[in-house]
Amino acid sequence: MPYPETTDAFTVTDIKTWSNFKRQEVPLKKFEDHDIDIAVEACGVCASDIHTITGGWSTDIPLPLCVGHEIIGKAIRVGPKVKNIKVGDRVGVGAQIWADLTCPQCKSDNENYCPNQIDTYGGKYPDGTVTHGGYSSHVRAHEYFTFKIPDNLETTIAAPMLCAGLTTYSPLKRLGAGPGKKVAIVGLGGLGHFGVLWSVALGAETYVISHSERKREDALKLGAKDFIVTNKEGWANDWKFTFDFIINTADATHHFNLKDYFSTLKVNGTFHMVGFPDEPLKELPVTAFAPNGCFMGASHIGSRPEMEEMFELASKQNIKSWVQTIDISEEGCKEAVERLYKNENVRYRLCLTGYDKVFGKRD
Amino acid sequence: MPYPETTDAFTVTDIKTWSNFKRQEVPLKKFEDHDIDIAVEACGVCASDIHTITGGWSTDIPLPLCVGHEIIGKAIRVGPKVKNIKVGDRVGVGAQIWADLTCPQCKSDNENYCPNQIDTYGGKYPDGTVTHGGYSSHVRAHEYFTFKIPDNLETTIAAPMLCAGLTTYSPLKRLGAGPGKKVAIVGLGGLGHFGVLWSVALGAETYVISHSERKREDALKLGAKDFIVTNKEGWANDWKFTFDFIINTADATHHFNLKDYFSTLKVNGTFHMVGFPDEPLKELPVTAFAPNGCFMGASHIGSRPEMEEMFELASKQNIKSWVQTIDISEEGCKEAVERLYKNENVRYRLCLTGYDKVFGKRD
Repeated sequence: MPYPETTDAFTVTDIKTWSNFKRQEVPLKKFEDHDIDIAVEACGVCASDIHTITGGWSTDIPLPLCVGHEIIGKAIRVGPKVKNIKVGDRVGVGAQIWADLTCPQCKSDNENYCPNQIDTYGGKYPDGTVTHGGYSSHVRAHEYFTFKIPDNLETTIAAPMLCAGLTTYSPLKRLGAGPGKKVAIVGLGGLGHFGVLWSVALGAETYVISHSERKREDALKLGAKDFIVTNKEGWANDWKFTFDFIINTADATHHFNLKDYFSTLKVNGTFHMVGFPDEPLKELPVTAFAPNGCFMGASHIGSRPEMEEMFELASKQNIKSWVQTIDISEEGCKEAVERLYKNENVRYRLCLTGYDKVFGKRD
Repeated sequence: MPYPETTDAFTVTDIKTWSNFKRQEVPLKKFEDHDIDIAVEACGVCASDIHTITGGWSTDIPLPLCVGHEIIGKAIRVGPKVKNIKVGDRVGVGAQIWADLTCPQCKSDNENYCPNQIDTYGGKYPDGTVTHGGYSSHVRAHEYFTFKIPDNLETTIAAPMLCAGLTTYSPLKRLGAGPGKKVAIVGLGGLGHFGVLWSVALGAETYVISHSERKREDALKLGAKDFIVTNKEGWANDWKFTFDFIINTADATHHFNLKDYFSTLKVNGTFHMVGFPDEPLKELPVTAFAPNGCFMGASHIGSRPEMEEMFELASKQNIKSWVQTIDISEEGCKEAVERLYKNENVRYRLCLTGYDKVFGKRD
């Protein structure tokens, strides 16, 4: 019972052995009028994949599970009601695969906050079908969550934009990144390097805040104006009341002295978190917000219009993600998630590729 | 060595005996060109007074200390460079008595976030003089922090506006309270009742969130559209994605399940805290912000333009604080702080009055 009933997937079968991938067929949802079938050609490897398969976010995940939500491939089947995608198009799917599209959130371009939203993997459709991601031969997606990829963006460059790109682009836009604004990006990893690329592209004066000197050169290459290291007591003193907002991409926020970070914000500035660490934030006195009346928040991916804007910006300014590729296979998947887990030689996004070699052409 | 060198003050001398007030002369700062001397006629009793004298915020407070920062009285001496106040004017002083007025914060009407700001009591001028508040015969204040009180506002009605009023007015304005907005006020006390009064006056649809039914009737009298009680599991379910923002005035935020409160916010809404509890916020997973991409923040009083706007609004709409008065004396101060500490029959602000009986006319 292969495709179109199933997809040929590299799956995790137990969170205890989360880097052992088993290739097997897993069911696809019933094909509906707004659906598009995609023969996957590349899939970025996101920290969410790790949080999920290690049980960091929840030990209650559906198994077997195929992760991956930075998916690009070729549309090979298009439902009769699909409007903007045709067979043969190069298309992408990010971290969200469905929403009701009728609630007030969906109707105000906030479908990423739809209470009925379904994640691209590990989610469940109303009929109980589990969603599976892009470490597989095929993905079936609703057209609203399927995006045409601009011709001048290479597949492996564009793939990581679908989650890491959007996750940083959305808050940068909503918080007003642009000329005259000073923005700091905390952490230079998959998310952080996109934060710098977009913030610079949008015209903001952009800074990187990091716990060590290691990535200074990369930050400046990405377009940052300066690089701020937090490994000395009092590091924040030179930066008080400086930034309009901070995009925090770090996974170690529970180790931060948040007061220091807050103190670098202008009055009513925002410390904004993207990415959801396994560990909760530590106890925090309300007085931490007092010296500048600052805010703290977090966001979850972004909306369709923001995804389209982001790709347009990337296309126009020819923005290039920093990507390393790994051929997909049981071993390739293992290498990818282990390298990302250990944060070993990842500069700054891994992308699985070579799908045709494993799955064939799939037209 | 009485006034003008000193003020005749009801002081706390030990945080262990924080409700025992001792009347004694304490020094005033040197009189300077921009200063105004005020013969105090009334002073609101603020939760800050309690946090301070009990050592809740810090056990390191200057002693003896005279608290009180909702001060109204008569200007009896005016420095040669003072522009807008003349002897005889009825004037008020709030929680801030000084700022450098030259830093970027001050220059952008954010002098309440000036890094060199001085609190009305318990602060220290550069020469080391400790500031003392309004539980006393006289206060000496810089003109920038001295406000004319509109004629149609009674002294005891206006006094609590100088801190509790401004502290709620400022975030309501900055967060955009007005027609078409839905605002919730958490906690109906000194701060909360002003939150409702201002929010309604600014045209927002206003709700009160409280832990018990007790104050429902008062909330509706103050103009709230509805009253939401949090004493049942699942109370937030009926209010998901409802409020543009929440002003939290509660002192018990560390007992809250913040996820519930956050869930009642619209996408990108704000949970805004005023007042600074002794206890820190509990550990919080970043995912608490995820369902609607919300923010959390806090503010510290407000700016001079906001104070002026607030009084103008109060004057135009004839807004009345709910105030109970107590005559000032050692016993009166004791009764005031103990009632507020125990939250016993305070609806919704205590105000010390009867100053002439104790201190004489002081022209």
